[in-house]
Amino acid sequence: MDAARRLPTSIATVCLSGTLPDKLEAAAAAGFDAIEMFENDLLTFNGSPAEVRRMCSDLGLRIAIFQPFRDFEAMPEPQRARNLDRAERKFDTMQALGTDLVLVCSNVQPAAIDDPARAAADLREMAERADRHGLRVCYEALAWGRHVSRWRQAWEIVRAADHPALGLCLDSFHTLALDDDLSGLAGAVPAERIFFLQLADAPRLSMDVLSWSRHHRLFPGQGELPVAQFLSDLLATGWAGLLSLEVFNDEFRAAPSRRIARDGQRSLIWLMEQAGLAPLPALPDFSGIEFAEFAVDAAARQELGRYLGGLGFRHAGRHRSKDVDLWRSGGANLVLNAEPDSAASERFEQLGPAVCALAFRVDDPDRLVGRAEALQYPVWRERIGEGERRIPAVRVPDGTLIYLVADPAHSERPIWEDDFILETAAAEPAPLLGIDHAAQAVAPGVMGTFVLFYRALFGLEPETPWELPDPYGLVRSRAFTSRDGSVRLPLNVSESSRTGTGRFISALAGAGVHHLAFAASDVTRVLDGAGERHAALLDIPANYYEDLNARFGLDGDELARLEAHHILYDRDAEGREFRHAYTRQFRDRIFLEVVERGAGYTGFGAANASVRMAAQRREASS
Amino acid sequence: MDAARRLPTSIATVCLSGTLPDKLEAAAAAGFDAIEMFENDLLTFNGSPAEVRRMCSDLGLRIAIFQPFRDFEAMPEPQRARNLDRAERKFDTMQALGTDLVLVCSNVQPAAIDDPARAAADLREMAERADRHGLRVCYEALAWGRHVSRWRQAWEIVRAADHPALGLCLDSFHTLALDDDLSGLAGAVPAERIFFLQLADAPRLSMDVLSWSRHHRLFPGQGELPVAQFLSDLLATGWAGLLSLEVFNDEFRAAPSRRIARDGQRSLIWLMEQAGLAPLPALPDFSGIEFAEFAVDAAARQELGRYLGGLGFRHAGRHRSKDVDLWRSGGANLVLNAEPDSAASERFEQLGPAVCALAFRVDDPDRLVGRAEALQYPVWRERIGEGERRIPAVRVPDGTLIYLVADPAHSERPIWEDDFILETAAAEPAPLLGIDHAAQAVAPGVMGTFVLFYRALFGLEPETPWELPDPYGLVRSRAFTSRDGSVRLPLNVSESSRTGTGRFISALAGAGVHHLAFAASDVTRVLDGAGERHAALLDIPANYYEDLNARFGLDGDELARLEAHHILYDRDAEGREFRHAYTRQFRDRIFLEVVERGAGYTGFGAANASVRMAAQRREASS
Repeated sequence: MDAARRLPTSIATVCLSGTLPDKLEAAAAAGFDAIEMFENDLLTFNGSPAEVRRMCSDLGLRIAIFQPFRDFEAMPEPQRARNLDRAERKFDTMQALGTDLVLVCSNVQPAAIDDPARAAADLREMAERADRHGLRVCYEALAWGRHVSRWRQAWEIVRAADHPALGLCLDSFHTLALDDDLSGLAGAVPAERIFFLQLADAPRLSMDVLSWSRHHRLFPGQGELPVAQFLSDLLATGWAGLLSLEVFNDEFRAAPSRRIARDGQRSLIWLMEQAGLAPLPALPDFSGIEFAEFAVDAAARQELGRYLGGLGFRHAGRHRSKDVDLWRSGGANLVLNAEPDSAASERFEQLGPAVCALAFRVDDPDRLVGRAEALQYPVWRERIGEGERRIPAVRVPDGTLIYLVADPAHSERPIWEDDFILETAAAEPAPLLGIDHAAQAVAPGVMGTFVLFYRALFGLEPETPWELPDPYGLVRSRAFTSRDGSVRLPLNVSESSRTGTGRFISALAGAGVHHLAFAASDVTRVLDGAGERHAALLDIPANYYEDLNARFGLDGDELARLEAHHILYDRDAEGREFRHAYTRQFRDRIFLEVVERGAGYTGFGAANASVRMAAQRREASS
Repeated sequence: MDAARRLPTSIATVCLSGTLPDKLEAAAAAGFDAIEMFENDLLTFNGSPAEVRRMCSDLGLRIAIFQPFRDFEAMPEPQRARNLDRAERKFDTMQALGTDLVLVCSNVQPAAIDDPARAAADLREMAERADRHGLRVCYEALAWGRHVSRWRQAWEIVRAADHPALGLCLDSFHTLALDDDLSGLAGAVPAERIFFLQLADAPRLSMDVLSWSRHHRLFPGQGELPVAQFLSDLLATGWAGLLSLEVFNDEFRAAPSRRIARDGQRSLIWLMEQAGLAPLPALPDFSGIEFAEFAVDAAARQELGRYLGGLGFRHAGRHRSKDVDLWRSGGANLVLNAEPDSAASERFEQLGPAVCALAFRVDDPDRLVGRAEALQYPVWRERIGEGERRIPAVRVPDGTLIYLVADPAHSERPIWEDDFILETAAAEPAPLLGIDHAAQAVAPGVMGTFVLFYRALFGLEPETPWELPDPYGLVRSRAFTSRDGSVRLPLNVSESSRTGTGRFISALAGAGVHHLAFAASDVTRVLDGAGERHAALLDIPANYYEDLNARFGLDGDELARLEAHHILYDRDAEGREFRHAYTRQFRDRIFLEVVERGAGYTGFGAANASVRMAAQRREASS
């Protein structure tokens, strides 16, 4: 990163869970320069403000601001006088804390007077008093403020108050949640009058803005608001201050503070790239998923081999130095890793047989490793034998590895030829084309961490979310996809522990890949072509095919063929078709799918998910 | 219940979790007369419609309707013709199922034509075809229908179509969610043209109506919509049909179907009372909580006695025939039950020492028992010794018992004199007044069951909900209170397992009373008056008192007295005061509170909850 343009970072204590010492340690460990001291975290702490100051100083953290000071301006007497007394008390606290800035957010009280001149006079009086203590005040428009809800209103009041100890506080959420932006800021507001900046993202939700703000804020990059544009517009004023995160989120409050603080820091590093402040090694170009790797032992390897054979996979090679086998069908590669003392064996010891790695084909693995390091994501390098290719990897937050292999277009030769003794390939009657998608179960409360990982590090973008009705609860699914569509990763989350996703999460100790889908040009041929070794396919009820008939009017032959092969069918609004079939589960850990994707069809057959999930539940209980 | 006016009941399969057979069995076990066959539950079922018909018939269930048939009316050709074909297919399915009615909900497609006459013509054509099969069609306005979203519009179309096989379907959610009602129905719509009625309640949420409907519907009485008024308005037409529940709720989807089905049936029994259809034994008049009972063994009894002594409780009596002791301070009674083979000993074996029962003082315990039986809530009668009083009880869904004791105003003499050998009461320096409130931790996903229990059976009404920021996640609290305020039960729920509430839920195997608050006329005197046996009080940080000073400007003496006694302070908008102090926890299972409630203050000091919860967390980890 270009350190010259890197701005210092800060996080509000309210973003993090735990006691105040927990929060401060987490913020320091994640590399923040400063914190916002959220008042409630001070009130609940059983030590003096001076002790807090010392703790911060020992951790190398500056207290950038004390906040919030609520419902101050434009109140009738005697509340006006009481509010000024209250401010004086808080000035004492600030001096003990060693911070010189307090945040006043716009009044929400019904009793507040709708008079910008009164608001300006009150803020001027407060600033005047603060100034006597060597302190400063900044004023922020809450999106649900009684009379002041836009930054332009707040600025007019600050401008009218006209005191050097009074400035503006900007907050991306309060601005963007009202579909507003910072247009007109540059030119109108001198940079030095912008005393503070708070950053938060959020999903777009149609709900009241107060609940939205209090429960659903996210770090930049985890949501859908144009936070990077917001920051760019601010930078256009010449402002170059502290980037401070202020997020209220129910899941963050319950999550380990170290993880959340680390994500916060990453989100700001990413945001500085997006806003053109400090570039990172560029995002990769993808060309698909080269392989998926299973952690196995000898017994599981044998069992899994039989299972894979049912879809036409064949044993295709053996690693030169390790207890690792390659299974292959056409362009789809699966690695079965039984090597002791490896990342795979660690995973096997923890979970039993499970997907322990995926490999993405990218234009430049080393550049992506550089990006991971800049974003503080852990990089993994497996030990290798002589002459073998070093394949760098990054760790998904759930422990799965993502290997980064060079696209053959950018590389001398495929990795398989260096590291594997390949068998002569027999003719395959119906080869698969490759890995179409790999779905992960994600525990509730961890989704934000996954979203940031796939989006900031890889540039994968979220697609339309789906709600899938499992017989025992709702599963929410959202795919993260590379621009070219060659890497597709549906993430599934379920609040219910009784759904299939909930059960995978239990089996996989939190999260992991539980579903691999292979692309085929003709799903029927693949299912026929597996010869003697037919996969045990998931049973699909006859009622489903009756309904297909009613909905799509498929011809009788087509319908019979689908039903005979347990194939599900979808057609999108543009008439693009999707045919797909599922295998039964392997040890309740994984299931496979073969998909035939009509040109331009970008979905995953979500309309069929309830049929699939009910069938899986029957299979699991039979 | 007046059986003559009882209407038959039905539930849509989509309300319940599990496979179709699970759903049907749960509906039958809860006493429903019929079901709505939700199409998706048929598609995912691996048996024919004829088998479903047989299963229902074996269970004594009628299939009242097949639903939904979507996006039918007012489509351009060729979709119009295709939709009629689709209808014909579904008529076949209906005949195999043995149901004669299909629900058409108003079209949501962008392509739908905004022409009521076209909609009427299409529905007439569908009804004509249905009629040839001996089937009928009903038409419902979805709240988010493209052109038809109000029942009046749907009725105009049905009226214009003018076919005897076409009628109206009414849905309380779709009407009430738009702040609409059934005014004008009686007089305008003949009862016999109302072919079907769907009932659902919901909390009032400010979100888009589609998400609200799909995820947050509730059974009547669990939410805030005027469903009883809706039903009364419908009955005014002379209509007397099936009461059918249609609820989409994420928690219901994940919950055991038997519990949800039973709640559904109870909600309709309650609704029939509320709408004046079929009376139940009347709601009780309360006069407070007579006692709380702990399940203990000999060791826990000794330890708990010491703990209670710290607040001034004294041993006050011994049960005549059982291993049960009474502890008392003024009007607050606590029972320590170590009797083997009792409800308490069952609870003790399961959980260790814990609150196993509360006793409500009511005007007529037997009438309330009758009400519980009519609502299908289990009634419990403990075995008794000769000459002892039989105290009936009902079971809270978490297994806690609620004893029903006669208000002394309605009864010969207090229960204590029959069943206990009472000690001569010594003078108490600062007696408590009674039990102010008893808070329960409730597991997420069970709240609806609790709400219905307290509301339908006891007539307790929910107060303003609070969000309490525990250091490790949010706790949502809502008190259920009797009209006279003498019984107050805050219910606390937390999605996070790391909060205090989450930890209580783990300790109490799901839910239970974890907090008892005692009323006092002077909390300082109670804390002083406990003499040598001072309760170990929860430590409150000095920062809290600094802030009290800033917020309320209390005088120095008052502030010093509060701080010295670890007392928290609140004052409401009307200036009414609340002082309260907490003990440390007893074995991570329960904590006690003494509250001094200024006249008219109805809250629980929620503003202080974060300070209390942070202090409890420090205590737990010290």
